[in-house]
Amino acid sequence: MFTNRVTQLLNIDYPILQAGMVWASGWRLASAVSNAGGLGIIGAGSMYPVVLDEHIKKCKVATNKPFAVNLPLLYADIEKHIEVILQNKINVVVTSAGNPAAYTSLLKKEGIKVLHVVSSKHFAQKAENAGCDAVIAEGFEAGGHNGREETTTMVLVPLVCSALRIPVIAAGGIATGRQMLACMVLGAEGVQIGSRFVASNEASSHQKFKNEVINSGEGDTVLTLKELVPVRIMKNNFYEELVQAKKRNASAKELENLLGKGRAKKGMFEGDLIEGELEIGQVSALLKDIKPAADIIKEIWLQFNEALNKPLK
Amino acid sequence: MFTNRVTQLLNIDYPILQAGMVWASGWRLASAVSNAGGLGIIGAGSMYPVVLDEHIKKCKVATNKPFAVNLPLLYADIEKHIEVILQNKINVVVTSAGNPAAYTSLLKKEGIKVLHVVSSKHFAQKAENAGCDAVIAEGFEAGGHNGREETTTMVLVPLVCSALRIPVIAAGGIATGRQMLACMVLGAEGVQIGSRFVASNEASSHQKFKNEVINSGEGDTVLTLKELVPVRIMKNNFYEELVQAKKRNASAKELENLLGKGRAKKGMFEGDLIEGELEIGQVSALLKDIKPAADIIKEIWLQFNEALNKPLK
Repeated sequence: MFTNRVTQLLNIDYPILQAGMVWASGWRLASAVSNAGGLGIIGAGSMYPVVLDEHIKKCKVATNKPFAVNLPLLYADIEKHIEVILQNKINVVVTSAGNPAAYTSLLKKEGIKVLHVVSSKHFAQKAENAGCDAVIAEGFEAGGHNGREETTTMVLVPLVCSALRIPVIAAGGIATGRQMLACMVLGAEGVQIGSRFVASNEASSHQKFKNEVINSGEGDTVLTLKELVPVRIMKNNFYEELVQAKKRNASAKELENLLGKGRAKKGMFEGDLIEGELEIGQVSALLKDIKPAADIIKEIWLQFNEALNKPLK
Repeated sequence: MFTNRVTQLLNIDYPILQAGMVWASGWRLASAVSNAGGLGIIGAGSMYPVVLDEHIKKCKVATNKPFAVNLPLLYADIEKHIEVILQNKINVVVTSAGNPAAYTSLLKKEGIKVLHVVSSKHFAQKAENAGCDAVIAEGFEAGGHNGREETTTMVLVPLVCSALRIPVIAAGGIATGRQMLACMVLGAEGVQIGSRFVASNEASSHQKFKNEVINSGEGDTVLTLKELVPVRIMKNNFYEELVQAKKRNASAKELENLLGKGRAKKGMFEGDLIEGELEIGQVSALLKDIKPAADIIKEIWLQFNEALNKPLK
């Protein structure tokens, strides 16, 4: 039985969190991860409040274990999402992409544990001061929305750990048990894993996107849209359009129009690999297979323990 | 006594290499590191052949231990540099910024051990095929010249290790013993450390630059000049000029002119923090003191062993 502050805080067997990713992390993935001993997280970022409500209810049927909801704080519907979370008595909320001071005390008053995703020591301290129970420190190599400082996991994790008393969970560039141990050697007490779970049977991502992920290699992702909110995506025709737009000095407004509505859904959920937005981390270059989430957890945990027994080559 | 393929290959006590950095790594730093049990490396990138010759000769007086020369393959004077290396019977050469096929067999024929710096699995395989004895896999967070794929150390090291039989040395984002162990958990058999040694008494860098390094924080470095050769530098007035030039769509030629000759010397050697080019890694945000190179080696090795005894918090 492994135990540390993260497993105790979240009441889970292994300190492995599955990232709440847009268009990937519905009730199927979250419940599969929680049933396997990690923390499944429903990604509310791509869900209307009524859809989130449905996913939470289905997740509760599918597992008796704890699971969480990821709530990007930049969305317009945020108050309604919070209402759904409170009504369904969710125990753990992961907030991201916004000010941790905004909703942490409200959620904490309801007895909810709050984790906040940060990409800098500065925001990590803000999260601790806001009363968060832990932070998720996410490096430059992570897929999806990302920080402006571009600090990588290797530097960010020790930097955040040096400044905080609450537990730090590492994210960005983690898909194997050795990467998990490396992050914990750096001072993290748990890991949040995204890309590896996109390539799982239970992810709601389109099969074409999953296949693209496991067939990709080094240099196939890029951090872009730095003029709006930086995001790591796969290079495709849509990305090339962004490059061309930047070459002609397009304004932030133009880029916003080019991005338009529904790009992420088109790519990751509907499988349009050419014109869609395909959010994924650098670690996709290491992924070679799609399998059940429970097998992923089992494999990572086995590798982690092997590495712990024999850390050096 | 610690021993692995890297300590055996290089005949050193600890698998710690000091990066051969322009305007920082002269004979004083290299001999101090070698005397302390690591591998000191003279950075030929900022030396005319006659200067390199002088540094090698002084280094031989200052230490009986092995030391190496770093040779960026993109310089015009390269043949003369190689002549100096052969005449002085240097045992280990670290090549970088160029094609490993160009000079590896020539150097190997002279009995020299050749290590090549790579930023991708693709070039790592090329280096192995060219007959290199080891590769140094350097991530996006590293200071100075950097790869176009922007792959971070957390992802690059396992990626390169998965493809190679020769030993892999990790670089980029490493300044502490915990970061060293993290990299070795990822599969590396040694580490190359740069920024931490800039903040050493023996580095030939200007005192003002050393002070700037230990007073910097997260987000103070940036990977820029991607149109020429990508390089990670500190943000200063010179960097702002680059940003403005890019905003007006300056050509690569214009950027080259703006960079001009002697920018790096001006910044790192002459201490012009405003108009100079200040190459340093992201890990500078973790550095707080300047001390003798021997103390740095001692501290990192102590931390490494503490971490090995107690890898988890």
